[in-house]
Amino acid sequence: MAETVPAPAAPRRAGPPPARDAPTSGSARAGPPLPRTRVALLDIDICGPSIPKMMGLEGEQVHQSGSGWSPVYVEENLGVMSVGFLLSSPDDAVIWRGPKKNGLIKQFLRDVDWGEIDYLIVDTPPGTSDEHLSIVQYLSAARIDGAVIITTPQEVSLQDVRKEINFCRKVKLPIIGVVENMSGFICPKCKNESQIFPPTTGGAEKMCQNLNISLLGKVPLDPQIGKSCDKGQSFLSEVPESPATASYRSIIQRIQEYCDLQHFQEEKII
Amino acid sequence: MAETVPAPAAPRRAGPPPARDAPTSGSARAGPPLPRTRVALLDIDICGPSIPKMMGLEGEQVHQSGSGWSPVYVEENLGVMSVGFLLSSPDDAVIWRGPKKNGLIKQFLRDVDWGEIDYLIVDTPPGTSDEHLSIVQYLSAARIDGAVIITTPQEVSLQDVRKEINFCRKVKLPIIGVVENMSGFICPKCKNESQIFPPTTGGAEKMCQNLNISLLGKVPLDPQIGKSCDKGQSFLSEVPESPATASYRSIIQRIQEYCDLQHFQEEKII
Repeated sequence: MAETVPAPAAPRRAGPPPARDAPTSGSARAGPPLPRTRVALLDIDICGPSIPKMMGLEGEQVHQSGSGWSPVYVEENLGVMSVGFLLSSPDDAVIWRGPKKNGLIKQFLRDVDWGEIDYLIVDTPPGTSDEHLSIVQYLSAARIDGAVIITTPQEVSLQDVRKEINFCRKVKLPIIGVVENMSGFICPKCKNESQIFPPTTGGAEKMCQNLNISLLGKVPLDPQIGKSCDKGQSFLSEVPESPATASYRSIIQRIQEYCDLQHFQEEKII
Repeated sequence: MAETVPAPAAPRRAGPPPARDAPTSGSARAGPPLPRTRVALLDIDICGPSIPKMMGLEGEQVHQSGSGWSPVYVEENLGVMSVGFLLSSPDDAVIWRGPKKNGLIKQFLRDVDWGEIDYLIVDTPPGTSDEHLSIVQYLSAARIDGAVIITTPQEVSLQDVRKEINFCRKVKLPIIGVVENMSGFICPKCKNESQIFPPTTGGAEKMCQNLNISLLGKVPLDPQIGKSCDKGQSFLSEVPESPATASYRSIIQRIQEYCDLQHFQEEKII
């Protein structure tokens, strides 16, 4: 799963709620992660779908078969679905009000034939509106493991994120944890670290302490992240020695551990 | 007006469409800007209202009078309205689908007594959905001067911004221009400049050339911007010597000139 969490380019990007596909989740339960974990990535940012570009899939189209819409595959074990695959040009605007967006999200969940998967990762736009309410509602029968919420260190971002945390609590969506993105920048010339988005109120760390939520990790700024996203390449493969890569890997591991523990406890109860 | 354009903290934040309040716009027409230009700032990011915090107005409430809702004033000539003033806590989530958001936007436009104003600046969330369609529709009778669109230099952001430009063209909203935010960072220690969000496809400059749109300016990263936003202080007053301040001032001047020219031409036609 290491290559599947895209580097979020935007602060305040609401986190993807990873959901296990109920009938097939057994294979990834407990123990060390499988070498070929099967991951589905669903982009429900209908008006700003960046996933096709960031995953190197621009220009790809969705194919229809007897069993539904086929995802577009980055690799054999990583399928992607996004409204971006339905547009004739990547610059086309999707000028839709809520109900139409909700309809497409429902179609993505109902009509896409993901095959056997271990994880379904949903990337949402920022906010607490149609997309968020719809995905939680439509997936209520499946058990959603929880939400990963992305912030940047400033209070202006944390304020929005606290709203998203309140949203999760109101709709009873568990919170896996918070990731602090754009967390410091080391000058490539003199190695001095600058807090470009200063954590004036203690950043995600303090917020997580106050709200009793896990801080999954902090990802420092690295110009190579933006470059990899623009080129549709995996930052983790391209720049394996970056401190940001180490941070991403640790965050992924913590998410996997959270999910494994949840499923282990569930199995014990059943 | 210099202090009224908030430093956008998020990339991909769709730009505020400045609209002149039709019956009162005459006083600012043509000639040099008035020393006390009267500005109204309307925040229609219903699920993520950051304006109250950034303008130092957190905890303020909206008052109702016989003539409608009163804006909250930063200074005598700068009134603000935001859903943030209607919440009991700044962390409260507004979990609303499109129609409820549209209803509040309509109410803001209908029920707020702005008094005599020269400019109405509307801050929108990113995207091309309910908020954007509603504000353009509800203001169709007033003449909107145009939209200011904010981007960051990477292609992933520019792709979203091209969608917003297409949106403006489809709904016949003039585009005043594009601002490139987070455009380079100068290390405070060694003065080396880093492109933290690299313009892999030429940044906003190339996009504006290709699409025949004005580039209003580039705002470099400055940690003081985030600090000022978090403290609710005017960055332009707090850090007058920053290159970002010079950039903001130049952008403001270009927007004023655009609006003045438009109104001058209109008067000639009438």
